[in-house]
Amino acid sequence: MPTLHAFYAQSGGVTSVINASASGVIETARRHADRIGTVYAGRNGILGALAEELIDTSRESDAAIAALRTTPAGAFGSCRYKLKSLEKNRREYERLIEVFKAHGIGYFFYNGGGDSADTCFKVSQLSQSMGYALQAIHVPKTIDNDLPLTDCCPGFGSVAKYVAVSTLEASLDVRSMAATSTKVFVLEVMGRHAGWIAAAGGLAADHGIPVVILFPEIPFDQPAFIARVDALVKHHGYCTVVVSEGAHHPDGRFLAEQGTKDAFGHAQLGGAAPVVAQMVKEALGLKFHWAVADYLQRSARHIASATDARQAYELGQRAVELALEGKNSVMPTIERTSDSPYAYTIGSAPLDQVANNEKFMPRDYISADGYGISDKGRAYLLPLIQGEDYPDYRDGLPVYVSLKNETVAKKLPAFEIAK
Amino acid sequence: MPTLHAFYAQSGGVTSVINASASGVIETARRHADRIGTVYAGRNGILGALAEELIDTSRESDAAIAALRTTPAGAFGSCRYKLKSLEKNRREYERLIEVFKAHGIGYFFYNGGGDSADTCFKVSQLSQSMGYALQAIHVPKTIDNDLPLTDCCPGFGSVAKYVAVSTLEASLDVRSMAATSTKVFVLEVMGRHAGWIAAAGGLAADHGIPVVILFPEIPFDQPAFIARVDALVKHHGYCTVVVSEGAHHPDGRFLAEQGTKDAFGHAQLGGAAPVVAQMVKEALGLKFHWAVADYLQRSARHIASATDARQAYELGQRAVELALEGKNSVMPTIERTSDSPYAYTIGSAPLDQVANNEKFMPRDYISADGYGISDKGRAYLLPLIQGEDYPDYRDGLPVYVSLKNETVAKKLPAFEIAK
Repeated sequence: MPTLHAFYAQSGGVTSVINASASGVIETARRHADRIGTVYAGRNGILGALAEELIDTSRESDAAIAALRTTPAGAFGSCRYKLKSLEKNRREYERLIEVFKAHGIGYFFYNGGGDSADTCFKVSQLSQSMGYALQAIHVPKTIDNDLPLTDCCPGFGSVAKYVAVSTLEASLDVRSMAATSTKVFVLEVMGRHAGWIAAAGGLAADHGIPVVILFPEIPFDQPAFIARVDALVKHHGYCTVVVSEGAHHPDGRFLAEQGTKDAFGHAQLGGAAPVVAQMVKEALGLKFHWAVADYLQRSARHIASATDARQAYELGQRAVELALEGKNSVMPTIERTSDSPYAYTIGSAPLDQVANNEKFMPRDYISADGYGISDKGRAYLLPLIQGEDYPDYRDGLPVYVSLKNETVAKKLPAFEIAK
Repeated sequence: MPTLHAFYAQSGGVTSVINASASGVIETARRHADRIGTVYAGRNGILGALAEELIDTSRESDAAIAALRTTPAGAFGSCRYKLKSLEKNRREYERLIEVFKAHGIGYFFYNGGGDSADTCFKVSQLSQSMGYALQAIHVPKTIDNDLPLTDCCPGFGSVAKYVAVSTLEASLDVRSMAATSTKVFVLEVMGRHAGWIAAAGGLAADHGIPVVILFPEIPFDQPAFIARVDALVKHHGYCTVVVSEGAHHPDGRFLAEQGTKDAFGHAQLGGAAPVVAQMVKEALGLKFHWAVADYLQRSARHIASATDARQAYELGQRAVELALEGKNSVMPTIERTSDSPYAYTIGSAPLDQVANNEKFMPRDYISADGYGISDKGRAYLLPLIQGEDYPDYRDGLPVYVSLKNETVAKKLPAFEIAK
């Protein structure tokens, strides 16, 4: 039997450590060259498989693959392309398997969040029903930390560290100036429908910073929020608000949809932070500043959590080991065994239980008043931001690798990708 | 003659290294205890002198003063309070001198930008005319880098490093996703009327990133800007726009004043970034993301430039040495002697030439097309972001010191501060 090749793809929003998982997959495969041939990577994620644009990672040096460990974003390109259901677009799934077959691919490593876990599961199912031997392993990745069955998701710990550090630093700035200038600072963070990222701002509160967190899990109560800000500013002279992009009114409207219109009458230019800041200004007349961290937070490899970077690598490594152990349709997971000292083992979960199952902040991780984190939330979060894992620098900037990304010759006719 | 005491105050917007200057002042004074008694610090800057709220820094341990070197923001509090002209409010200047006299203060170290240089100069003049012996030394500080007579200003190099690193990281993110998602990323940075901070985004261009910079020094030309973005996206698949908060239309209107109104008809919630992003969307139909770094950029001690932190300390140190050498009404300066290898000496400049004299980006530091930096600009900027100077971390967060900030007993009647 000829050596089987592997296919690896990055999916959805990238993170500062998704390439560490890629490094874990490729380096581990290289150590098992007797059983895994070439690792092909999809150019721009799963689109690369559909379009048969397979990057030959064997043309990258060991040094380049090692450097992925400290390089943010998606080195092979990622995509926001969700395969439709098997019923609606069976052709796409079949195409994936045709491409895998044409290139002798027997291992499929898909590195993403909930949607890609679902795709990975379906590809696995269909390959079985088509009689094509394929081992499909999902490698978890999402800054939103909303995957079930794993204690945390690679990518999250580093964003949490960025948000905790930034909240602390900016709050010290505000504290310095509050006597005559800004009294309320609003920082908007990502996280979609889950408040995990916003929760990280609560870690700055342990350093004496008055922080108000607006979670998506707690419907926004404007009078209560304003009263809270007022009380903190009266007591401390200032406060910092960390608002999740997913924070919303009880009727479901996001805070960002506050009806802001531009000169042309178009809907708001975005941002929950300016809306919240303006709200505080109108109710309390306090001077404010606001920031929207946006992509800065999820690409900030310069302040990555060492714990997160290590786990991202380990889960990539473990995915390959699971494949070599004959597993299929599974995802390696982090299983926490102790908060303090932090300890975890790496387990695995069946993909059919991962897909379509978002994990929100448990209510008891949030303080009783809904504006901070509880001791339980703190105990969960703290281990995930531990340790610094600095990239090398040259000429004042981090040394991030750009790969050659050379694709192999196509063997199949072109395929039209559904829009 | 009794030993003279010193007064130190922080002024205006704080930076990630202004406390390094404080550390330089206090540690150097402590080494000359035979000639300088106590260093008092103004609580909330010059307001502390007017209100006779003098923090006794001798109550802080050597370790705490050393830790200021890696702690961002203003450890004693700063303020946005500009003394009026001598003619308009002579009482305030006289009050300063009364407070200095009551507490035996013979040295005045004022750590700030152009306005505080002006105040420092006037206090020096008035003390002479009142026959009170005072040596007034200004310690430069401003992220805007707009002080004359010094090659650069402490605070700027660290913001420049933050902006260069963030532009590089976020651009790698956009590059990963551009095939199916965001094609234009807009980052708004500070700098007031000078484009120094925005220019730092141009350092990411050396790493293959297509960057468009919108400088305050170049009046905004919307059709030309849109054409530039269009060309870059067609060629690279994406681009990053770094817009200065001071960027403006030819008629002087800031880009941020694009007429955005909220639900109540109030003027815009702020931000040049969302305005520029929306402009690109309307003209080219491209998917965008935007970020406003705001205070995050000037408080980001975690990614401070080692060059900047060192210079901030050295200028604080030199300020005390100048005082001990009998100088008055001067500011220590950075005098660059070589770009590569970077070399500088520390000089000094008379305060009457510093005040009211903003330094903008020279046109030849900006590329011919107005959207990037020239080789000359690059040669200027690169040395200033060199080196990393990481704070210590505990439990995943930087260890930043908070001082005791105990004030000494007042000796004078209360003074009403002008609003």
